[in-house]
Amino acid sequence: MLEITGTFIDEISHDIPHQNWGKKEWEKDFQLMKKMGIDTVIMIRCGYKKWLTYPSNVLAANGAFTPPQDLIQLFLDLSLKHNFSFYLGLYDSGEYWWEAGDFQKEIDINRQVIDEVWKMYGQHPAFSGWYLCQEVSRKMKGAIHLYCQLGDHCKQISNNLPTMISPYIDGTKAILSSKSALTRSESITLLDHEKEWNEILSEISSFVDIVAFQDGHVPLDQLKDYLLINKSLMDQYEITCWSNIESFDRDMPIKFFPIKWEKLLLKLLAARAANIQKGITFEFSHFMSPQSAYQQAGHLFNRYIEYMQNASL
Amino acid sequence: MLEITGTFIDEISHDIPHQNWGKKEWEKDFQLMKKMGIDTVIMIRCGYKKWLTYPSNVLAANGAFTPPQDLIQLFLDLSLKHNFSFYLGLYDSGEYWWEAGDFQKEIDINRQVIDEVWKMYGQHPAFSGWYLCQEVSRKMKGAIHLYCQLGDHCKQISNNLPTMISPYIDGTKAILSSKSALTRSESITLLDHEKEWNEILSEISSFVDIVAFQDGHVPLDQLKDYLLINKSLMDQYEITCWSNIESFDRDMPIKFFPIKWEKLLLKLLAARAANIQKGITFEFSHFMSPQSAYQQAGHLFNRYIEYMQNASL
Amino acid sequence: MLEITGTFIDEISHDIPHQNWGKKEWEKDFQLMKKMGIDTVIMIRCGYKKWLTYPSNVLAANGAFTPPQDLIQLFLDLSLKHNFSFYLGLYDSGEYWWEAGDFQKEIDINRQVIDEVWKMYGQHPAFSGWYLCQEVSRKMKGAIHLYCQLGDHCKQISNNLPTMISPYIDGTKAILSSKSALTRSESITLLDHEKEWNEILSEISSFVDIVAFQDGHVPLDQLKDYLLINKSLMDQYEITCWSNIESFDRDMPIKFFPIKWEKLLLKLLAARAANIQKGITFEFSHFMSPQSAYQQAGHLFNRYIEYMQNASL
Repeated sequence: MLEITGTFIDEISHDIPHQNWGKKEWEKDFQLMKKMGIDTVIMIRCGYKKWLTYPSNVLAANGAFTPPQDLIQLFLDLSLKHNFSFYLGLYDSGEYWWEAGDFQKEIDINRQVIDEVWKMYGQHPAFSGWYLCQEVSRKMKGAIHLYCQLGDHCKQISNNLPTMISPYIDGTKAILSSKSALTRSESITLLDHEKEWNEILSEISSFVDIVAFQDGHVPLDQLKDYLLINKSLMDQYEITCWSNIESFDRDMPIKFFPIKWEKLLLKLLAARAANIQKGITFEFSHFMSPQSAYQQAGHLFNRYIEYMQNASL
Repeated sequence: MLEITGTFIDEISHDIPHQNWGKKEWEKDFQLMKKMGIDTVIMIRCGYKKWLTYPSNVLAANGAFTPPQDLIQLFLDLSLKHNFSFYLGLYDSGEYWWEAGDFQKEIDINRQVIDEVWKMYGQHPAFSGWYLCQEVSRKMKGAIHLYCQLGDHCKQISNNLPTMISPYIDGTKAILSSKSALTRSESITLLDHEKEWNEILSEISSFVDIVAFQDGHVPLDQLKDYLLINKSLMDQYEITCWSNIESFDRDMPIKFFPIKWEKLLLKLLAARAANIQKGITFEFSHFMSPQSAYQQAGHLFNRYIEYMQNASL
Repeated sequence: MLEITGTFIDEISHDIPHQNWGKKEWEKDFQLMKKMGIDTVIMIRCGYKKWLTYPSNVLAANGAFTPPQDLIQLFLDLSLKHNFSFYLGLYDSGEYWWEAGDFQKEIDINRQVIDEVWKMYGQHPAFSGWYLCQEVSRKMKGAIHLYCQLGDHCKQISNNLPTMISPYIDGTKAILSSKSALTRSESITLLDHEKEWNEILSEISSFVDIVAFQDGHVPLDQLKDYLLINKSLMDQYEITCWSNIESFDRDMPIKFFPIKWEKLLLKLLAARAANIQKGITFEFSHFMSPQSAYQQAGHLFNRYIEYMQNASL
């Protein structure tokens, strides 16, 4: 039965305030993840703009800051200790493909990053896969090319380790976090979603092994229908279908705090109904961890554990 | 002397992130309420859009989700245990009367909800009254009709249990929580407020027993003047006049965190000066409770207790 | 070597939610400040609009509320106890100079405030200086006049105690906290910044002893260049150059939570590289204190302490 067995780690964060944890807090958090049944961690990106998770010569030469701590090494070691699979997220320039629309530049810098991180961490036994971190929602010519090129490069260098993406559905809640609005009237239809993703998946299926759609952008009573389409398309292209069961609340003026338990539960049940293969969440450490700065997170952890214990009786 | 002796319970929440409390945390919170002198709890609504506090066949048939926990039963039982009066808030579609402006549809669904909740919980000894949860600020033809129809239905079915509303003053801080602004230049004048509410109260006085205006929408130095008008009008129509002394801060970019103690105190003093009969707050569990996820709430609780202890010496 | 040895105290707050601390919490916070190496506290303003930190006859006559606690007395006493220098911030009407653009009215009311606070607290041994709290970023005729007039008045009445200002650089992050955006495309150039501040400093140098620019409004990789200009200009005019190393994060949708440790560190290093004379922060109690309602603050405190201990080995 589907449970949440994976989580992103949101370092470097794009829009979630940092918790300023040191090694001790991260060790504690991996123990707490284990307690919830997590076996997979996906570091969302190894760098964003000038902020890095590891000491990169490639990105330092591009103007990035060398971080005070090597988080990739830390997360790999903790993953090994707890027998987790670690997926490494690529670099997001936050610029080339966003505003400039220059996907080629994003690909070029990431090829160098892939070479570098594989050289630095590729021998680590916990290194289990790659996360292509550029998030899209609809068919964009450049994005398909990027997924193919980067997925291919990752797989070739790493003896075919799996690659993963986590796109979003272009629904009514697809709003930038720096905007105050919560919803918009436009949304992609089920039909267009199916049509566009059919085209995308048909092109990227040789280079992307796992697709975990974010589940927070459509109204909850429509979620199952989108997940059924996702699962059906991925079965067709033999792509593994996970669901990114978001644990933060997109309906509140504070962007973002932990989600209401009932919403998480309903999204989990929708994923089960669609026969999704694995549940992951964005993300444990802020929104579900008992040591999160947001105390609602610890209560969400308790509600989730209680529910799973009762369900298994 | 006026103290805060009532609180809303904000389940289901419209714009305040959920705390994900279970039974244990709610039990603790009622104890903390008791310690502060609370004797009345008002569940703000029994449902909002598709989110419910109780397993409702009526609303499930309308597309709502059945909740994992029956909060009405829990709150009634805790109210009985602590000798609190429990007021039950009606259903807010968040749609019919908001955007569609269809008050009749809002009335129709609520009649069924009233019948259902009375059948399910009406015999509970803590069931003490009704809260008509549709909040308005000015004269709106549809709203008056709604208050009359729903108030009448509640009173008839329940052998005349009291009904309550909590409107807001259409002041400079009447801003949607999903907007980033904090104030606006327009505000209703004292004269228009008196004129419009005179008309409203004259029409609803047979169906609404208690009116508790929200006190956070006008500048603090004008509050007393509005409260004096409210009290005078309600005396005229023999309506009980409470004040909803909001415990969250409307002046900060984070929407919303606990209010500065001094502001709460000044609003309490304004209510006393206007000879208001009872103070309630929106709401204890997020903004005044020592176990709130917002630690400022516990400090506010301490400041309030200290003040009351000194005042009683 | 430059460390953070001073902090603002943000009472009365303009846009940071109050923590509702009493005397006990403030005593604890001064102990925690001491532990971090702080020796200077700057109360950001003694009043803002109608909110005051002390019982002021001058401002009460102007419509302000008399506060439940005399914070100036409390902070002075705690400063004496811990051997801190206390700087007193002036009054910010939040009106005369903001929207009305009437700097003369702001000057007039502040002259009376200066007279009053000096009479009330001037003999306190911890009273060490003045903070001219009106924050500007660029050359504004009225602001220069205000700094000269108020600085002169402060110094004359207090036997030449030092006066301080904390302007901001008109960079890409100069955004009102009540707006949801995080950046804007416009920014002052280095050249214009130097030109305008050369003119400002040349006019105010007899009346302002210390200038501590806020360091959060320009991209981190440009900060050092601005700080070098600041230091060079201030050396030229024999003004003491501090840096206001902001400890809150301007890059996140929640406005505001504690800053990521790496960002604070890089800003500290930029200040060192520019040979700045002292580091202060806005502000310890919300964003760096282990007892802050924001738990990220305590972790930031730990990261800072760890770094300083390692650096001193």
